[in-house]
Amino acid sequence: MSLLRDNLQCRDFVKSGAFKGNNPAEVVQSCDITFSCVADTTAVKDLVFGNYGVLQGISKGKCYVEMSTIDEETMQDVAEAITARGGVFLESPVVGSRVPALEGQLIILAAGERKLYDECYSCFEAIGKKSLYLGADIGAATRMKLIVNMVMGTVVAGLAEAMAMAEKVGLDQEDVAEVLSVGALSCPTVIHKSQAILSQRYDPHFPLQHQQKDLRLALLLGDKVEQPLYVASAANELYKKARRLGYGESDISAVYRAASN
Amino acid sequence: MSLLRDNLQCRDFVKSGAFKGNNPAEVVQSCDITFSCVADTTAVKDLVFGNYGVLQGISKGKCYVEMSTIDEETMQDVAEAITARGGVFLESPVVGSRVPALEGQLIILAAGERKLYDECYSCFEAIGKKSLYLGADIGAATRMKLIVNMVMGTVVAGLAEAMAMAEKVGLDQEDVAEVLSVGALSCPTVIHKSQAILSQRYDPHFPLQHQQKDLRLALLLGDKVEQPLYVASAANELYKKARRLGYGESDISAVYRAASN
Amino acid sequence: MSLLRDNLQCRDFVKSGAFKGNNPAEVVQSCDITFSCVADTTAVKDLVFGNYGVLQGISKGKCYVEMSTIDEETMQDVAEAITARGGVFLESPVVGSRVPALEGQLIILAAGERKLYDECYSCFEAIGKKSLYLGADIGAATRMKLIVNMVMGTVVAGLAEAMAMAEKVGLDQEDVAEVLSVGALSCPTVIHKSQAILSQRYDPHFPLQHQQKDLRLALLLGDKVEQPLYVASAANELYKKARRLGYGESDISAVYRAASN
Amino acid sequence: MSLLRDNLQCRDFVKSGAFKGNNPAEVVQSCDITFSCVADTTAVKDLVFGNYGVLQGISKGKCYVEMSTIDEETMQDVAEAITARGGVFLESPVVGSRVPALEGQLIILAAGERKLYDECYSCFEAIGKKSLYLGADIGAATRMKLIVNMVMGTVVAGLAEAMAMAEKVGLDQEDVAEVLSVGALSCPTVIHKSQAILSQRYDPHFPLQHQQKDLRLALLLGDKVEQPLYVASAANELYKKARRLGYGESDISAVYRAASN
Repeated sequence: MSLLRDNLQCRDFVKSGAFKGNNPAEVVQSCDITFSCVADTTAVKDLVFGNYGVLQGISKGKCYVEMSTIDEETMQDVAEAITARGGVFLESPVVGSRVPALEGQLIILAAGERKLYDECYSCFEAIGKKSLYLGADIGAATRMKLIVNMVMGTVVAGLAEAMAMAEKVGLDQEDVAEVLSVGALSCPTVIHKSQAILSQRYDPHFPLQHQQKDLRLALLLGDKVEQPLYVASAANELYKKARRLGYGESDISAVYRAASN
Repeated sequence: MSLLRDNLQCRDFVKSGAFKGNNPAEVVQSCDITFSCVADTTAVKDLVFGNYGVLQGISKGKCYVEMSTIDEETMQDVAEAITARGGVFLESPVVGSRVPALEGQLIILAAGERKLYDECYSCFEAIGKKSLYLGADIGAATRMKLIVNMVMGTVVAGLAEAMAMAEKVGLDQEDVAEVLSVGALSCPTVIHKSQAILSQRYDPHFPLQHQQKDLRLALLLGDKVEQPLYVASAANELYKKARRLGYGESDISAVYRAASN
Repeated sequence: MSLLRDNLQCRDFVKSGAFKGNNPAEVVQSCDITFSCVADTTAVKDLVFGNYGVLQGISKGKCYVEMSTIDEETMQDVAEAITARGGVFLESPVVGSRVPALEGQLIILAAGERKLYDECYSCFEAIGKKSLYLGADIGAATRMKLIVNMVMGTVVAGLAEAMAMAEKVGLDQEDVAEVLSVGALSCPTVIHKSQAILSQRYDPHFPLQHQQKDLRLALLLGDKVEQPLYVASAANELYKKARRLGYGESDISAVYRAASN
Repeated sequence: MSLLRDNLQCRDFVKSGAFKGNNPAEVVQSCDITFSCVADTTAVKDLVFGNYGVLQGISKGKCYVEMSTIDEETMQDVAEAITARGGVFLESPVVGSRVPALEGQLIILAAGERKLYDECYSCFEAIGKKSLYLGADIGAATRMKLIVNMVMGTVVAGLAEAMAMAEKVGLDQEDVAEVLSVGALSCPTVIHKSQAILSQRYDPHFPLQHQQKDLRLALLLGDKVEQPLYVASAANELYKKARRLGYGESDISAVYRAASN
């Protein structure tokens, strides 16, 4: 039982016997564990701190699992507010984009109350292929997600530069894609993003502006802990350039347009 | 039948019935097709242009397959010299390091005489898992190899920055490695290099100074065709730093020491 | 007449006939124009929005000149709060570090109410060598300052790399400094920072961590307007490295330690 | 008395009483000290090693001053060839572009035979405002020149990014130029290049492709001595981009077009 924003999807669930709350507070009141996964920090704050929001439904023992990807500080604010009212909190952002989500292949990162993680385990098994508990420290799962997405951003930017150069030096980009697909770098990202570059189709599996936002947050995290990130910051600038070229809402692979521009 | 530098290995072949030439010229004279794979540009030049060298054994119809990874210009010089004497030339550098070589899992890139490529095909099948003919233009295979290794260099540098940051923000590097190993970036390079970083063992599967040399050559190629490479050049500087720290002869994964320094 | 944090300095002014307010509100109430210049965003917020703060002293026609360097958003919040109470606001951060301040050689950047700028003009002449009115748009002066400091950060990082390389290639760093001091790049920054690097004395004329903070803010500004900043972002990472090496409170010239490390 | 490539200029000198040699060998034979300053490595090699070239005119005690900017290795080859024939060699590249050259404001860097430097001193005084002897080690003056030009390249790239950002955030670029011209970064380069960017006129005082070539050589020097150059390499890529946009023969300030693209 969860809060569903999309009314059509919601209707199907209700038909199957689900209870539909009129607002976040009501949902939380009627559930033992509530899972939330919304677009961004603003949506999370509205949902939790707004009128008839989550906080008003939380009481001793109620469990709340925040699966949205937001900044660490907001995640900690939400956790504090919920536990202050006797609630139990788990942070659990997911790794993976549209296709893994549809196929139940997400990776779930979790931090917070261990007992709640254990209770959620079967649900996580259902929606993902792997879940990982990172300890009690709220923020740890968000940091992990940013670091993993930072690697993603660097890899795809590096791939884009290679494809751009291939064309300039008279190689067939399909050959590059083929060599990469059979070598030691062969992974879903390299294979799918090479194909996207080849086909010049940038359907947003993972929108470029989200990747760039994640790089920005990762770099700010690096700033906080005094970790220089020469390669990731160069990648970040290339994604900015792609945004300027108008590819913010395209797939991350459109960073190729910045590299080949 | 080929020129073998290591006498012990050579002895075994001779025992099995192979003919051992006393010098490159003699080897070439006694073979239809000669395969060469040596360390670097200097070795290639010595072998081909030196006294009793390959050129002195080449005559009309003799085939020569250069599998060493060297710069494009030297490759073209060798090709010209051999074809000027009636020889047939194929450029065929390989992608893959020590373990793929031992397991017959190399990728063979070839450019030059198509007929010779076809004749070599069964040999390439024996030593590699994949071969790719890139056209008649000598240099194309070398450029492809540099581009593929440029991606490799960027990926491992990006991974190194991520592992360094993970430690700074209080995450367990083993957890990062695990998440990466099951996600969309899961490939032999990411898996093995994460493990090398975790174990702090940098046995040279692919020596860091070779990776940095390949990045340098790729960047110079980019210079020639006016292709900016912001991310790869940042990665290159990080490998230079690792060399300065004394890791030139260690594995490429030792770039982690530069990132975490 | 202004709020003075340092009591000893304050005493001298009072002896000379100045009125000392007991709190920000009282200072503002007793002055036509109040100038504020404090350390950071937190200090500005306390001063303006705190108990007995500036806002409580503002009434119709009271003028407030904010000379602190803070982020654009806070500057705009302060401006709105003051004008909402009938006050008149001028944003006027200064360019220049310790020595220019002592010598009246600061550059004053201003944005906001033109009439107030004109009234302040004689004061600005007294404390600086140049003032510039950038229009009514609050935030413009802060953006200008960030951009100017971004150039500063890039120049000093570039100088540091050059001095580090000079040593590695067997040149005398004093010779580099001399050539730079007579050539087309000869400016106070290049001259003084070369000397600081030569003498290995990093007395904080402009603390490195402030430079890095300004670079971070400039990069975030670039992010907002989709302006890639490849060179400035590389410089930023080098300053981060210098912070990690423990030079955050040293002069900006200590970025040399990161470059030569 | 020197070899003059431009016949019209040469004619004026001859009218004034100068001797015109028919080839480099003849010039060297008829002079005690010959000064050479030509376009690039190829021109230097032709002049020195070609038919009727410098080497054929060198005899015991003849002095040769190479003022061209070329790579260190060629400089050393030329020095060896000349001294092997009993000649005396001085390497003396100059710092400064078209206007300083016309105004006698060049800086002359010298390395090689000290006695020859002393003999040339009055000539250097005539054509430059400053000369510096860097020791007997041939190559030192070239390395110094590359390092100084590396700083130049970084500074102008940093300036270009700042001017590009200024426009994006709604500031008047003239205001940026004015603030920079009165502050601690005020130097001929910053002043003139700001003006070039403002006027959108890129008359080649120092051609961009030469700046990029110098950056490439400086980075290769850094590679040799294991000196990471994160900022200079980012600048180098930006100049590459400007070359791709067609500004190779424009002034170095046209790097702005790459930054604002």
